[in-house]
Amino acid sequence: MSRPIGVFDSGVGGLTVLGALRQRFPAEDFVYLGDTARLPYGTKSATTVQRYAVNAAAHLEGHGIKLLVVACNTASSYALDALDRAVSIPVVGVVEPGVRAAIATGAARIGVIGTEGTIRSEAYQRALAGRAAPVEVEAVACPLLVPLAEEGWGDHPITDQVADYYLAPLVAWGVETVILGCTHYPLLRPSLQRVVGPRIQLVDSATAVAEMVAADHSDLLSPGDREGAVRIELTDASDRFLRITRSILGRDPEELEVVDIDQA
Amino acid sequence: MSRPIGVFDSGVGGLTVLGALRQRFPAEDFVYLGDTARLPYGTKSATTVQRYAVNAAAHLEGHGIKLLVVACNTASSYALDALDRAVSIPVVGVVEPGVRAAIATGAARIGVIGTEGTIRSEAYQRALAGRAAPVEVEAVACPLLVPLAEEGWGDHPITDQVADYYLAPLVAWGVETVILGCTHYPLLRPSLQRVVGPRIQLVDSATAVAEMVAADHSDLLSPGDREGAVRIELTDASDRFLRITRSILGRDPEELEVVDIDQA
Repeated sequence: MSRPIGVFDSGVGGLTVLGALRQRFPAEDFVYLGDTARLPYGTKSATTVQRYAVNAAAHLEGHGIKLLVVACNTASSYALDALDRAVSIPVVGVVEPGVRAAIATGAARIGVIGTEGTIRSEAYQRALAGRAAPVEVEAVACPLLVPLAEEGWGDHPITDQVADYYLAPLVAWGVETVILGCTHYPLLRPSLQRVVGPRIQLVDSATAVAEMVAADHSDLLSPGDREGAVRIELTDASDRFLRITRSILGRDPEELEVVDIDQA
Repeated sequence: MSRPIGVFDSGVGGLTVLGALRQRFPAEDFVYLGDTARLPYGTKSATTVQRYAVNAAAHLEGHGIKLLVVACNTASSYALDALDRAVSIPVVGVVEPGVRAAIATGAARIGVIGTEGTIRSEAYQRALAGRAAPVEVEAVACPLLVPLAEEGWGDHPITDQVADYYLAPLVAWGVETVILGCTHYPLLRPSLQRVVGPRIQLVDSATAVAEMVAADHSDLLSPGDREGAVRIELTDASDRFLRITRSILGRDPEELEVVDIDQA
């Protein structure tokens, strides 16, 4: 099949997920949509996030995608059901893969950090509660981490202090594994790991999403050794977003277009 | 005249401006529109900010407003011309009043702090350059200050450090007056004043806007001693925005409605 895989995020943090997918499935074509004109989703209500996510998915369906990966934790938390109803293709979010990866570490005490929306939705808490082996869960909203990641302060003394403010209660509680429940947080890994210490595992969903796609949707994947193409679409392309895009990709994007999806 | 004054901001920070206007003009009716579903504007491109601002102004015109106060520095910086063309009523931004207030302090060295969009637009720099008495100007973008203000960390050691990071170069340069070029920044006044020291004046545009309306648009103002009504409209009403709204107003809003202006 030559139809692309669609990857959707509120901004450019989801490019970390796109990177893991490309590495795992190099023959696939991808269309990435970052809703930079309306980000962040993490501070907004469920109603607004659902409306934006369904709007974005409709736009990506217009590209003939065969699978939709929701590379945004807030949208995965609030809008996965709405997306399943709105589109006719399979939808994969980032919550379930992150939970699987955390369970696989064997931890008995799992922490979840994310945006206010993700934590308030309790999507991670519910997914972790439904497991065969019981685990204890503590979830903490960390609203300042996305702005710090976007500043490029992933390894910075001020980020250490903010991270310590949010994570110290988890460490005191005896957390063993922390789920990075936001696609921006891998950019803060140096500060976060320093704050929790070397023995606590930080799990992000990027690799886990690729594994889940391989496990659950192998029938949709392209065989062969061609090199797939990647198209990046943003709803706003300020210098700021382009700078972060380059920083995550490690280079200029090959194909980037600004699109207006408000009226879709 | 019984038509209301419209006040527009990307979010709820502009309520500080609404407060100053109400205090100065208690007999007026006001309609406040906070575009919380699409905030922040400060990180987005001129094109997107102009589109959002014109869209919001059209919505407020539907309320029959007689004057539009743009209580958002980014929109005032990028979209004032576009708004002047788009609506048939007078439009007042926050840049010119802030500049007048800064000049009135008699400072020879003026600093401006604001969002990336506001600083990049150079609206303040141009407005200050056009004065009779020449002043020296340094402008600094401070992207982390809005998230800190929204966290309620206006008087917090981490905010002190972030503020010091941004403001230390201004202080070293010998700044005498700093324009708070963002309606959120008055919420950070304790930290900001501590960092710059007591001799440097911090100027915000809230009071200055009210003075400019009184000076330039007295023909539009309502006489009499009735008490005006205030209607607050937000495009998203997450718990977060309602919490910040209450914190700025010091109480629950009298009349608050969630509106959808995307399709306007």
